Amino acid sequence: MPFETLSQHLCFGGRQGFYRHQSREIGLPMRFSVFVPPQAADGPVPVLFYLAGLTCTEETFPIKAGAQRLAAELGLMLVAPDTSPRDARIPGEADAWDFGVGAGFYLDATREPWSRHWRMESYITGELRQLIGLRFPADLKRCGIFGHSMGGHGALTLALRHPDLYRSVSAFAPIAAPSRCPWGEKAFSGYLGTDRAMWREHDACALVEDGRRCPPILIDQGMADQFLATQLNPDRFEWVCCDGQPLTLRLHEGYDHGYYFISTFMADHLAHHAQFLKA
Amino acid sequence: MPFETLSQHLCFGGRQGFYRHQSREIGLPMRFSVFVPPQAADGPVPVLFYLAGLTCTEETFPIKAGAQRLAAELGLMLVAPDTSPRDARIPGEADAWDFGVGAGFYLDATREPWSRHWRMESYITGELRQLIGLRFPADLKRCGIFGHSMGGHGALTLALRHPDLYRSVSAFAPIAAPSRCPWGEKAFSGYLGTDRAMWREHDACALVEDGRRCPPILIDQGMADQFLATQLNPDRFEWVCCDGQPLTLRLHEGYDHGYYFISTFMADHLAHHAQFLKA
Repeated sequence: MPFETLSQHLCFGGRQGFYRHQSREIGLPMRFSVFVPPQAADGPVPVLFYLAGLTCTEETFPIKAGAQRLAAELGLMLVAPDTSPRDARIPGEADAWDFGVGAGFYLDATREPWSRHWRMESYITGELRQLIGLRFPADLKRCGIFGHSMGGHGALTLALRHPDLYRSVSAFAPIAAPSRCPWGEKAFSGYLGTDRAMWREHDACALVEDGRRCPPILIDQGMADQFLATQLNPDRFEWVCCDGQPLTLRLHEGYDHGYYFISTFMADHLAHHAQFLKA
Repeated sequence: MPFETLSQHLCFGGRQGFYRHQSREIGLPMRFSVFVPPQAADGPVPVLFYLAGLTCTEETFPIKAGAQRLAAELGLMLVAPDTSPRDARIPGEADAWDFGVGAGFYLDATREPWSRHWRMESYITGELRQLIGLRFPADLKRCGIFGHSMGGHGALTLALRHPDLYRSVSAFAPIAAPSRCPWGEKAFSGYLGTDRAMWREHDACALVEDGRRCPPILIDQGMADQFLATQLNPDRFEWVCCDGQPLTLRLHEGYDHGYYFISTFMADHLAHHAQFLKA
């Protein structure tokens, strides 16, 4: 199983597909989804990577976010990877919903037993990106990245750590300071160990504090988000970004953490990315 | 549990909610979802009922169809009931995916053991409709109905049987002649018995042949639909409608039976309904 098409569906004149391949980086089969817009018939199109949140899969974004309509208008390819390795047979890997399976946190684990397979950063910035370039009509010189919650953390940190790879970045309700919230502390101590200096390399706030910069960021945050008070810390991220990292943080009264919130503001995010990817 | 709010989510300035109530007609708790558009703040709005297909629930439409954006623009309320009674404790009720649980076929069963609870037609045209009028800012004088597959069958037959209740009607890939396809034959013989004269009362083609009429119908059908050849019969429906039932049947090359097809043409359906409901 080097590369396998699981299903493909016509959608807004483009093609929504689901794929599986044997990942060298992860050492296991990995699934991902791709929406190819109709404009790809005329040549390579920009690529927008979407990273989903805890418990999600490569299906969550294409099913729930309602992004294909505008991607078909704007001529953007949408790529959504799974949120972690699966079936690694690590004891207890699927016991928690916020660690292990479905909770890869978009970093390369350094601690046993996770370090062998949990290499989501290398997978997304390297192998998957290259695979998209090989198998799809993608213009890899024009890539953007966005995501939700854990995937918002992933989008911010990968954009800050690899500014050469991503021309545009945005996030919905990101875990913006994972070193300072229960989800992040559990994930980082499990995947990276107890040395907090290592954590700074995967914490959006710390990366900006330490001088990393990426393209102007758009963040949307619901004010009725059930995780806002304990897990997300957008105010802290806004504060560190004052020192030269362009950021538009929009707070929305009454909106929660779910895909009804995300779909409401999806059009603004795609327009934000298009302005950089199609410039 | 007379009426219970399960969850509510802000969405495109409106409110997507999920509810449960003790149904008198069904004799069991029933779930449904409602999208209330922002225009409802200024007074009652038209209501569009959506009937989902086999195996679906009241969650399928709000999660997968991408209808809220346009409903919020057009000022339409969207109501999606579940597709059958659940937990009736009829032996084997959930053994098949195309009969029993998740497969109510939007009729009142006359055969034991189904006749006690499987009363989806009376539920949707009576009790649920009244409940929506009581609990939500709905203008029941302006109702439309649409659906997909088994729910397309439901929309067509309920509109033809209750033309006073529905001002607008449309369907995605409906089971248009259930008396003549395996899904329909299994359901009708199970719920209604072997007397085919009874079946005609719940078969859209037969109803039109027998002189029933409803508002102009819009049907979209994918030509790569895996059930087109064996289950759907849109050509037969088009043929019987030539005799005075207005119908626009659109065939779409390459589209299949799923929600990527439905979401692609959702805007056209909402516009079709709005033209009658807002006239």
